[in-house]
Amino acid sequence: MVKIVVDAMGGDNGSSVVVSAIKQFLKDNNDVEITVCGKKEELSELEGKCVVIDAPDIVPMEAGALEVMRLKNSSMNVAIRTMKEIKADAVVSCGSTGGFLSAATINLKLIPGVKRAALVAPFPTKIKGKNVVILDIGANNENSGEELAQFALMGKLYSESVYGVKQPKTYLLSNGAEEGKGAPEVKEAYKILKESGFEGFSGNIEARYALSGEADVVVADGFSGNIFLKATEGMAKIMSGMIKSAFKKNLWSKIGYLHVRKGMKEMSETLDYKNTGGAMLLGINGNVIKAHGSSDEVAFYSALRVAKVLTEKSVVEQIKKGLENA
Amino acid sequence: MVKIVVDAMGGDNGSSVVVSAIKQFLKDNNDVEITVCGKKEELSELEGKCVVIDAPDIVPMEAGALEVMRLKNSSMNVAIRTMKEIKADAVVSCGSTGGFLSAATINLKLIPGVKRAALVAPFPTKIKGKNVVILDIGANNENSGEELAQFALMGKLYSESVYGVKQPKTYLLSNGAEEGKGAPEVKEAYKILKESGFEGFSGNIEARYALSGEADVVVADGFSGNIFLKATEGMAKIMSGMIKSAFKKNLWSKIGYLHVRKGMKEMSETLDYKNTGGAMLLGINGNVIKAHGSSDEVAFYSALRVAKVLTEKSVVEQIKKGLENA
Repeated sequence: MVKIVVDAMGGDNGSSVVVSAIKQFLKDNNDVEITVCGKKEELSELEGKCVVIDAPDIVPMEAGALEVMRLKNSSMNVAIRTMKEIKADAVVSCGSTGGFLSAATINLKLIPGVKRAALVAPFPTKIKGKNVVILDIGANNENSGEELAQFALMGKLYSESVYGVKQPKTYLLSNGAEEGKGAPEVKEAYKILKESGFEGFSGNIEARYALSGEADVVVADGFSGNIFLKATEGMAKIMSGMIKSAFKKNLWSKIGYLHVRKGMKEMSETLDYKNTGGAMLLGINGNVIKAHGSSDEVAFYSALRVAKVLTEKSVVEQIKKGLENA
Repeated sequence: MVKIVVDAMGGDNGSSVVVSAIKQFLKDNNDVEITVCGKKEELSELEGKCVVIDAPDIVPMEAGALEVMRLKNSSMNVAIRTMKEIKADAVVSCGSTGGFLSAATINLKLIPGVKRAALVAPFPTKIKGKNVVILDIGANNENSGEELAQFALMGKLYSESVYGVKQPKTYLLSNGAEEGKGAPEVKEAYKILKESGFEGFSGNIEARYALSGEADVVVADGFSGNIFLKATEGMAKIMSGMIKSAFKKNLWSKIGYLHVRKGMKEMSETLDYKNTGGAMLLGINGNVIKAHGSSDEVAFYSALRVAKVLTEKSVVEQIKKGLENA
């Protein structure tokens, strides 16, 4: 049995998408037990299917670390503490990233030796079926070169254990491919990785090639990584909107759409973050999964699937071992 | 007469695209005089149309500041010096950004009071015909909060003088919209802009909304700005490729394409950087225009047009005045 604890509150779309996702997930996976924390009256559909814990307070999206700690009985804090108490395998939330990071770090601690946790997620690439693991996409506001070098190691271990990639090609996200390009911390990380003979280290990569399918792991500081994530997301959305209106122009274009519907659907499936959804807070001593704040049912379902996979692949154990041997 | 000096070398596509762009530009603009620097034998088609200065050395793409200075007789250095000597209005190059920045700063100097130059370019937005001015997209590897605040001022003056925007809405690129989000330098810049009552300052903007058409000016440090630029560029390219293959699937999808060709063309024109092409090195005492390294004829033509517009709008004078009054 895989035991997952879910924080049902704090997402942009309310608890109802979380409830639907859990119902569907339990239907599809009979080897999973879910404990859900949140406003009890919103979770009545889950009674009998899950353990429901009433925790009506919500951590606001913009909450800082201190505020999160003050909100002891918020669904987020209760979920994390419950995970620890019942020795569950994973915890999932679509609430505030900063709040989730603080609460998880304080309650579960970092893996010994880890300097900073990083938010890691697989991104779709140009090559169908191939993902690239990118971290940190938003757990930190700034990172040192040493932290980036450690992210490279954690990213590599993640790619190996979750995707079974052998000798993942690991790059640093930078403003130029050549050695010596980049912000000071990128240059420092480059030096550390090069001098330590980091297996699979392939140098710098520019943002325009990060999704080309060449890289298995791309490392960035949390601020730039978040810019990257949201820039690609924004551009994909703008283009999808434009494509839709191009097809809606007149009867002929509508007929045109019928002929390319399949190809277009394939594209949006390849690029849709919802299908890869669920970012892990890598470096924390436990499987802590952050679903997108604006998750719909599909995206939250996908985050639950990530929680299950990370448990089955023993990612935290792999990271621990990898860090010990580094 | 607008006098433009062109560095014909150093681009990814060689000097031939530059030669074609200049020929076409001179045909379309009889109020422009061009002086071109580069390998004389590659510029023979321009004899009689421009002043041609033989400067066969090329600044390599990855050149650092010191190397650029050593290459005194490179086409890039000669172009900048020539601009100064003949009192030309603008200089254009598609060579190394770092090299161009160093050479321009040393020869032309910064505008008095400017801390750092920034690379600024208009980006297309979701709203047809509306651009957003983004800086710095790659002149610097890191910036302080004070520098970001000054970029905001230069960006605002640029938006006003080039696009005639009244009270441009100016944002800081960040990992969250709320005050207090972002890298330390973003927080510092926020404080400076807020406390000084900066006209039009509208707070932070996430990367996914930067091209939504809401912002007139978006300010970033040179590293994150470059990640943003290349992430959007990369995503647009991946999607275009996927759309093309969706249309090429079979006879029916090819017929489908015929029906939406116009809409698709409109989209690529809206999003094509080539049409807005040519980034200015803002803050330098002169109109210094960087064309994309991989410029084709259309993109380089567009950079020449930018050079002419910046001259006609007296952008450098406007920045000087604006800084004096700040």
